[in-house]
Amino acid sequence: MARTLTVAALQTAYGEDLAANIDKTAELIRHAAAQGAQVILPSELFQGPYFCVAQEERWFATAFPWRQHPCVTALAPLAAELGVVLPISIFEREGPHYFNSLVMVDADGSPMGVYRKSHIPDGPGYMEKYYFRPGDTGFRVWDTRFGRIGVGICWDQWYPECARAMALMGAEVLLYPTAIGSEPHDPSLDTAAPWRRAMQGHAVSNVIPVVGANRTGFEPWAGYPNGGQLFYGSSFIADHRGDLVAALGREDEGVVQASFDLDFLATHRAAWGFFRDRRTDLYGPLVQSRPQ
Amino acid sequence: MARTLTVAALQTAYGEDLAANIDKTAELIRHAAAQGAQVILPSELFQGPYFCVAQEERWFATAFPWRQHPCVTALAPLAAELGVVLPISIFEREGPHYFNSLVMVDADGSPMGVYRKSHIPDGPGYMEKYYFRPGDTGFRVWDTRFGRIGVGICWDQWYPECARAMALMGAEVLLYPTAIGSEPHDPSLDTAAPWRRAMQGHAVSNVIPVVGANRTGFEPWAGYPNGGQLFYGSSFIADHRGDLVAALGREDEGVVQASFDLDFLATHRAAWGFFRDRRTDLYGPLVQSRPQ
Repeated sequence: MARTLTVAALQTAYGEDLAANIDKTAELIRHAAAQGAQVILPSELFQGPYFCVAQEERWFATAFPWRQHPCVTALAPLAAELGVVLPISIFEREGPHYFNSLVMVDADGSPMGVYRKSHIPDGPGYMEKYYFRPGDTGFRVWDTRFGRIGVGICWDQWYPECARAMALMGAEVLLYPTAIGSEPHDPSLDTAAPWRRAMQGHAVSNVIPVVGANRTGFEPWAGYPNGGQLFYGSSFIADHRGDLVAALGREDEGVVQASFDLDFLATHRAAWGFFRDRRTDLYGPLVQSRPQ
Repeated sequence: MARTLTVAALQTAYGEDLAANIDKTAELIRHAAAQGAQVILPSELFQGPYFCVAQEERWFATAFPWRQHPCVTALAPLAAELGVVLPISIFEREGPHYFNSLVMVDADGSPMGVYRKSHIPDGPGYMEKYYFRPGDTGFRVWDTRFGRIGVGICWDQWYPECARAMALMGAEVLLYPTAIGSEPHDPSLDTAAPWRRAMQGHAVSNVIPVVGANRTGFEPWAGYPNGGQLFYGSSFIADHRGDLVAALGREDEGVVQASFDLDFLATHRAAWGFFRDRRTDLYGPLVQSRPQ
């Protein structure tokens, strides 16, 4: 019997009220599960507004140890109730260290561990280096009830190294929770197309479905150019050819979902031969901190 | 004064007559140069038909040492005459070793050296492992008169490792001569979209223009499914966002070309921060022959 994976991405807007954000996410999770989704991906840091737009001390108080994070303690029981896998993006605190992290919750509601975002961006509108220490877990894949899943977090998604590492570790689908939108320093710069394109490229190069879940909506920030940050949604699911099989618009709120035959994909991936023909003997420049 | 690079890709059909293939290529090179192209890319192995469709001993006789290859000796003087850079794809022989290679000819007509295709495909319609030893040069970039240029050959183009390595070595544009078309074992499998998409992904992830030059036309092969191999052209130039700025159709013969401001690209690439935030400490799985 074929192993079929049904995966969903959630897209909505979030505000300052943590409980309301969790409720909103839970409602979408229930909706996706009712439609048959087995792995359901909320967007990045749905606990609140995307605070990295500004550098404000108060946000450090919204980080928690990953096992005690309110998003995890609230949604893990829902995962068990619905029998679905939930990759939960959180602001994590571990002692004096703060990370942009992902807790994988299996379909029985048990947290499987944490992945800490490896690549931390910094620039106008996305000043994450103020908040997050670069992740120290390395890339991870998760043997969930429904398949072996790799997750990168937002900025990770631009890096072919991250996608390849997860594919090499046996990932059968790649998930990316994100929070991305306008560029305050240059309103003419619209990154939505390249954002999708980088992930579609990972899909092709690794013969693997890719899911991107982004937030939408306008988040007001006092003193910020244009009065706030506009997130562009555009969440999508691409198949192993990079074709978009499901996608949302910039302002939609809701769920996209798609099903994949994991056994077909494993065989088809082998037949393409990309993993057969890799030249690890020539990839030295990729791991040198200063290649010649 | 801004450093502007004008690059062109050639797309045409080739047959069994070597001299005719060189003449056809030379004509297109003259056409591109007349339009202002500085770096002009013919497609892969334009010396003849794409012989890797079959496994036939006679084709080994069409390989030459790279300095003496007829495509190089014929076109290097043309490079000098026109003052253009020519990356020339050849079937190379070195003693008992045979490679799928690229000779970079600078705008003064001098051959700068050879790159040997690192990733060798094998499968119905593309049985290259019968002919070519995997390349032993490693990835290369070339300081030509008009900029620092990286070239991968066909199957190399599916590998984000190859693109990244060349970008890390300072490439300002990535070129891919290719020969790709129908899949004899599965006529329903059309790889044209993923083919472009993989390279568009490299453009985004490395903030770099990418050029793909593919052959077009039908090449008859006795006993072959459907009587021969149909190449799908679709040569293109993508900018640093992956946007197609110039493209040909499946059956077109001709030239596409585009100009890029290399100084803008260098600054813009730095501002994106991809190269700032790489985590070489976490990329170990990429260079392990059998990652865990």
